[in-house]
Amino acid sequence: MSNPEIETQLAPLRERVQEQGNLVRELKAKGAPELDVKKAVAELKVRKKVLEEKELALTPSVVSFDRAKMEDLLKRRFFYDQSFAIYGGITGQYDFGPMGCALKSNILALWRQFFSLEEQMLEVDCSILTPEPVLKASGHVERFADLMVKDVKTGECFRLDHLIKQALEKLCTAKDATPALRAECEDIIIKLDGLNKQELADVLAKYNIKSPLTGNDLTEPIEFNLMFATQIGPTGLVKGFLRPETAQGIFVNFKRLLEFNQGKLPFAVAQIGNSFRNEISPRSGLIRVREFTMAEIEHFCDPVQKDHPKFSRVANEKLTLYSACNQMDGKSAQPSTIGEAVASKLVANETLGYYMARIQQFLHAIGIKPECLRFRQHMGNEMAHYACDCWDAEILTSYGWVECVGCADRSAYDLSQHTAATGVRLVAEKRLPAPKTVEVSEIVPNKQALGKAFKKEAKSITDALAKLSLDDIKQVETQLSAGGLYKLTLSDGATHELGAESITVKHATKTVHVEEFIPSVVEPSFGIGRIMYALLEHSFQCREGDEQRCYFTLPPLVAPYKCSILPLSNNAEFQPYTQQLSTLLTKAELSHKVDDSSGSIGRRYARTDEIAIPYGITVDFDTLKEPHTVTLRDRNTMKQVRIGLDVVVGVVKDLATTKLTWAQVLEQYPIFEQQEATK
Amino acid sequence: MSNPEIETQLAPLRERVQEQGNLVRELKAKGAPELDVKKAVAELKVRKKVLEEKELALTPSVVSFDRAKMEDLLKRRFFYDQSFAIYGGITGQYDFGPMGCALKSNILALWRQFFSLEEQMLEVDCSILTPEPVLKASGHVERFADLMVKDVKTGECFRLDHLIKQALEKLCTAKDATPALRAECEDIIIKLDGLNKQELADVLAKYNIKSPLTGNDLTEPIEFNLMFATQIGPTGLVKGFLRPETAQGIFVNFKRLLEFNQGKLPFAVAQIGNSFRNEISPRSGLIRVREFTMAEIEHFCDPVQKDHPKFSRVANEKLTLYSACNQMDGKSAQPSTIGEAVASKLVANETLGYYMARIQQFLHAIGIKPECLRFRQHMGNEMAHYACDCWDAEILTSYGWVECVGCADRSAYDLSQHTAATGVRLVAEKRLPAPKTVEVSEIVPNKQALGKAFKKEAKSITDALAKLSLDDIKQVETQLSAGGLYKLTLSDGATHELGAESITVKHATKTVHVEEFIPSVVEPSFGIGRIMYALLEHSFQCREGDEQRCYFTLPPLVAPYKCSILPLSNNAEFQPYTQQLSTLLTKAELSHKVDDSSGSIGRRYARTDEIAIPYGITVDFDTLKEPHTVTLRDRNTMKQVRIGLDVVVGVVKDLATTKLTWAQVLEQYPIFEQQEATK
Repeated sequence: MSNPEIETQLAPLRERVQEQGNLVRELKAKGAPELDVKKAVAELKVRKKVLEEKELALTPSVVSFDRAKMEDLLKRRFFYDQSFAIYGGITGQYDFGPMGCALKSNILALWRQFFSLEEQMLEVDCSILTPEPVLKASGHVERFADLMVKDVKTGECFRLDHLIKQALEKLCTAKDATPALRAECEDIIIKLDGLNKQELADVLAKYNIKSPLTGNDLTEPIEFNLMFATQIGPTGLVKGFLRPETAQGIFVNFKRLLEFNQGKLPFAVAQIGNSFRNEISPRSGLIRVREFTMAEIEHFCDPVQKDHPKFSRVANEKLTLYSACNQMDGKSAQPSTIGEAVASKLVANETLGYYMARIQQFLHAIGIKPECLRFRQHMGNEMAHYACDCWDAEILTSYGWVECVGCADRSAYDLSQHTAATGVRLVAEKRLPAPKTVEVSEIVPNKQALGKAFKKEAKSITDALAKLSLDDIKQVETQLSAGGLYKLTLSDGATHELGAESITVKHATKTVHVEEFIPSVVEPSFGIGRIMYALLEHSFQCREGDEQRCYFTLPPLVAPYKCSILPLSNNAEFQPYTQQLSTLLTKAELSHKVDDSSGSIGRRYARTDEIAIPYGITVDFDTLKEPHTVTLRDRNTMKQVRIGLDVVVGVVKDLATTKLTWAQVLEQYPIFEQQEATK
Repeated sequence: MSNPEIETQLAPLRERVQEQGNLVRELKAKGAPELDVKKAVAELKVRKKVLEEKELALTPSVVSFDRAKMEDLLKRRFFYDQSFAIYGGITGQYDFGPMGCALKSNILALWRQFFSLEEQMLEVDCSILTPEPVLKASGHVERFADLMVKDVKTGECFRLDHLIKQALEKLCTAKDATPALRAECEDIIIKLDGLNKQELADVLAKYNIKSPLTGNDLTEPIEFNLMFATQIGPTGLVKGFLRPETAQGIFVNFKRLLEFNQGKLPFAVAQIGNSFRNEISPRSGLIRVREFTMAEIEHFCDPVQKDHPKFSRVANEKLTLYSACNQMDGKSAQPSTIGEAVASKLVANETLGYYMARIQQFLHAIGIKPECLRFRQHMGNEMAHYACDCWDAEILTSYGWVECVGCADRSAYDLSQHTAATGVRLVAEKRLPAPKTVEVSEIVPNKQALGKAFKKEAKSITDALAKLSLDDIKQVETQLSAGGLYKLTLSDGATHELGAESITVKHATKTVHVEEFIPSVVEPSFGIGRIMYALLEHSFQCREGDEQRCYFTLPPLVAPYKCSILPLSNNAEFQPYTQQLSTLLTKAELSHKVDDSSGSIGRRYARTDEIAIPYGITVDFDTLKEPHTVTLRDRNTMKQVRIGLDVVVGVVKDLATTKLTWAQVLEQYPIFEQQEATK
């Protein structure tokens, strides 16, 4: 990004962003009408997008990457592929084959060690099927929707923004398109993300857009909720959804978890599991799917005490931060230590900062390229309704910068919502520095009078009275002292009028030692499939001079298999050694693949490279002689050493667990230079 | 079971089973009408159940187990609990808290190592959402149902067999129940499992059974499919289900997996994942739930070659086998080595036998009591429609013998079904001992004639012709040579008549070197939740002389935390040592819990025992002196040793990975006898 030639090309685009950013600030500062601010923000986003697309078009790694070639290899060696393909397949659903599954479970195992174990988090495993009231409280029933239109005759559905984009692109490329029409269409395409339902409907009408498949008319835009609905139990009366995120399972268990932690804050809860989103028309491979694995952390803490005891350990970690401010100014992302970023209040607090640094360390450990990772801050207008500061770890892929880990301060939003919905107080307590005397007011029901007046209803009334807030009680007092009646609403909606003969308000003082509060939540949320995809892109390579020999440089820690065993030929004398090595590797808990198929050793190396096996042991004629030796080959460098049969498994174990580097192996053992040539 | 007193009580019941078993055999042998056989089998099941219930009533471990006490502990320390409890909860759904989640993931990690790694299985991770055609082919859409009735007014649903049982039990215990009525009801209750839909409807009518909640009338019995239905995508046209088992994901990927294995058989595929069953009225805690984790293996092999290369390694493993024959004879389960059982053909083949032995070794390794494990063979009449031999690993719990692992030879059923449904041949090839000359017939379409006669349809016709079977081709030949027309049905149902002018049949000979076949599948299928529950029951203990001090003796390999760190008091001098130990344990990848809360050391030990922590390190005043030492305590024996601070983490690591036993620790380090007393 510091290439001066590129910067020259970008400079005017940066200026245009900054100009608009300043306008947005100005409008906000002078309290302009919301609509004006929104329009200005939409234009800001458009300009940002133009800048970003230009930037990417000038980034060599993105431009030169051959996605089709990688996808062919992933499919051919079954890392993953479309689900139910023999039944025609379902878009947005993928099955992970042996290599994809092993890669995923290695990433998850490392994640557990890196986060759960290291921070002594409480890991939970909650239900996927979620009853409707839970997701009403969380806001998903109301807000978790995309716009679509339907073909009025066939019922075929289209995601509205995709459809418009496609239709306008077609208009642009038509032979008879005038330059004015082209400019108009391009302008709309670029603004699409910022348009609301009505504006999109207007575009549909203006360009008379029809179904691209049939030419039929389309319906008005419809909000389509992205959750999969089902019925729990046989009655058809309990509506449920497949969870759209794992977080809610943690929030509804907050009381149990706080108790498990002996009532103490802060503590963090982790969950790994599948979530589901019924995308209207999923594309982009693993990036946008209907079923995906998430790993989420909810770190509960005191809202006025968001420092982190281990922050000093990461304070010097250098991150690429793309602040909201820089985004508005058309500037690029800037490097900063997380210590500086928190000190300058750019990042809201130590806890958020700590997790950002740890997320980066984790992503580096599994093999994400450091230069392709940035943390982008949400701008005020794009922040989710619950968040007070949010940074996305974005990874650069051939699809552009992809949000792979969200790191949000969700404040007290979720616990407050579930408290309001259930009446169960999801709060923590903290000891006051000194005991405090407080005035308490409570309503004392005259049970006899209530019973006489309301019979069976008396109990519901007493219960409802006990739930009144302090404000409610004040109101009761005002009304009663004025000689009036208090109108009480029960949970079923019924109302009753109560007078001084049935209730009185009592005042007392109480000494309290603790104070209740709703904890804040900091949430790092990992999209495992997206991270995996980005990792595969970053580790995809072709051998110099042989573009057909492709492989993945996955680090040994996450590579599906750690080692291959290749007998040089199918000579029967090699077999006992192959077997012995396999048994020893199994004992050492090292996943491995024996390839004793025919085919030259060079071809078999290439096959093991394709599935990212970092090390290969070859049994050859020298193995038969005493002292027994084998060769050990490194995938990335293709270099080999000659090494004792008795020590090779230990060396592979140390390499696979990063206790030893290949460079160290090269120093300790003699180089071997023959077999690769026999390709 | 070998107690002679108990056997005397059981003898008459055993005889009654045998008598009926002989009748069933006789009826089958002489080819009696199916209805007669069915009735005899139902009676056989009844007698078996009476025998088994008597046996259990005489089993001390089952009788003395206090389930309520254990459940209280599991809930209090949040091993698991009902999901969405703050919203009123959903039956049949559970959330695993930190201890349950860790126990589960430790069991799964061991499972991976024990099966996947050891056998070099291919592990996959397939979609949960499954389109309808897949589950039609597997038989689930048609057959995966239970009977229920509904309250005609409220719509409340009841599982039919549960409802009848409850109603008849109530009749029996009524004051005015005659001995005759009682006997009648008891007889029906015992026969319930064997009754069909009409017979159950008759019982409902005869006893005029109403809704137990409202007294309202009930509907006729309804078949309720146990799969959760949903819509995939926004159109509402693609019906899908949450998978009821993980197996189908493997079958539909068979071709890719065979290719990954370079076309070679046998190979095994493993999958761990969630499955879903919409139970009508789930009960029995973790035993019957709506959402559960399974670990399934599909071992594909040549149907005529089901021997297993590693069978000799397990041949001497002694299993408790409850054969179909013994079940019919009223005999008890018998011990046998798996080698003998396969040699005598009691267990169908080596592959099935190998997995049975490995299942047992695994269950023992995680802590299932050997005397509470048996393998029960399915009797001919209860075998699933696809199986040719099936043995369930059943574990004895307070709910009786519970099926926890199924081990079935599914033969070629599933691959055949999916082949038939999709036209994709899910087959393997093997080399013939010698090349073979075969006659091949094929239909040669006259494309010009077809094109002229059928225009656009010509291609569909040519495609359909290419798919005709050998039998079809013979038929074509017969019809054409008789001067007739062949009626071809296309995949869309349209039919066309073709004569000799548009098609001819050609014969040729071909030399073939390979033969195609549909592989057989042996399937071990683990219900992880059930295994976990049985394990918790088997490891639940109370301290002698203190019934309130309960704990779990979970083996270190699967225990949620491996170690606790307890400073003797909140003396600040202990803190650096506590911290240092925690860091070292984290480095050694040992999950642990620091309990520095106030409370006597004895009480804190009791708390760590409750969550099954096998080892505890205590930092005390002697720790402060050089050489620094701590105490190490064993949960099961409550014995302690004094041990160097520098070596204790290594010792715990060895204990946790079963490289060292507590008995060996006792020999090496001096006993320490103080702290427990301070309770």
